[in-house]
Amino acid sequence: MTDRARRIPEATVARLPVYLRSLAELHDDKIATVSSERLAEMAGVNAAKVRKDLSYLGSYGTRGVGYDVEYLSFQMSRELGLTHDWPVVIVGAGNLGQALANYGGFRQRGFPVAALVDASREKVGGYIHGVPVHHMDDLPELAADLGIAIGIIATPASAAQEVADALAAAGIRSILNFAPTVIAVPEGTSLRKVDLALELQVLSFYQEHRDTEGV
Amino acid sequence: MTDRARRIPEATVARLPVYLRSLAELHDDKIATVSSERLAEMAGVNAAKVRKDLSYLGSYGTRGVGYDVEYLSFQMSRELGLTHDWPVVIVGAGNLGQALANYGGFRQRGFPVAALVDASREKVGGYIHGVPVHHMDDLPELAADLGIAIGIIATPASAAQEVADALAAAGIRSILNFAPTVIAVPEGTSLRKVDLALELQVLSFYQEHRDTEGV
Repeated sequence: MTDRARRIPEATVARLPVYLRSLAELHDDKIATVSSERLAEMAGVNAAKVRKDLSYLGSYGTRGVGYDVEYLSFQMSRELGLTHDWPVVIVGAGNLGQALANYGGFRQRGFPVAALVDASREKVGGYIHGVPVHHMDDLPELAADLGIAIGIIATPASAAQEVADALAAAGIRSILNFAPTVIAVPEGTSLRKVDLALELQVLSFYQEHRDTEGV
Repeated sequence: MTDRARRIPEATVARLPVYLRSLAELHDDKIATVSSERLAEMAGVNAAKVRKDLSYLGSYGTRGVGYDVEYLSFQMSRELGLTHDWPVVIVGAGNLGQALANYGGFRQRGFPVAALVDASREKVGGYIHGVPVHHMDDLPELAADLGIAIGIIATPASAAQEVADALAAAGIRSILNFAPTVIAVPEGTSLRKVDLALELQVLSFYQEHRDTEGV
């Protein structure tokens, strides 16, 4: 890992894609410069944090003008490794795996789904939304042949740990877990999880307090 | 909205479910008390922020002991409105809608999927994973009859704004958007989005910097 990457705190890394998304919205609206205050508002953090986060990228903005939207997007994309594609394998060809294979946001943002993999022989052999379905046993070969960078776990919770072990054994060092369970990965493997229920809990907070007051 | 709810910053509300998930893990491991440092580590923030966030709930912990896991979980669940169920409607009965209807984490955490809704008459009338599929036109009636609290948008990006308008018109005031696009909702409606590609971008950061150094 580069020295600079080592110096960027994990929480900052997790916010970079949020800033990048805000910058893309500004770019779509043909806005050329943005203040840290405006970017903070869009990303849901405070302006001091934005300035601190961006300083890790070597971006300081111009007093009274702000940050150049296009240049900051470029810097951030480069830092995030988004200037080239990262082929992805999805493990689990059920509804969630199929939905993810068909999710427009992945390819569009540089994460083409190169293969679906499933433990059931019945699902193997065909194509789902143009993505070939292979058997779990072929994972090591697929990972090497397709240059898979990231494995997505889209299985039931009960299979998730076994799948994570198989991904790691196939040399895949970045794992995104959609299964609603906690899994462990070897040292040196990056793991992120998507908790689909988490945002519902945020909504229920506001719903609860709205209902209480009847407003 | 209650005075207290008004005082809790949005960013704190967004972290409460993350703390709650960490507390559930501790509870599963039969751990009775937790320090702000440990909770911070599990949630990926710093300890000062944990203490500040929890102070909004009126929780201050005990010096040298920490927070009572069970009591803090209870307080947090109550604050988040998780002591009762919030019926959910999913709009879009494609792969993503079907996957969400089948996602174990929703019912388990108090968000039973009461109905799926689709614009295509062909999909209407049956059941998917035990959830009835209705036509979009029936949304206002369904919302009232089933007491729907939250609407989930699981359609392609092109339909998302129209669906958000229909949900709002049906009196549903909490919306979770999975479609990869920006939508607007009326004043007084809560909107959250799930960006499925965002976590991939975090992984690509680490992958990029690992590859650069060949470690």
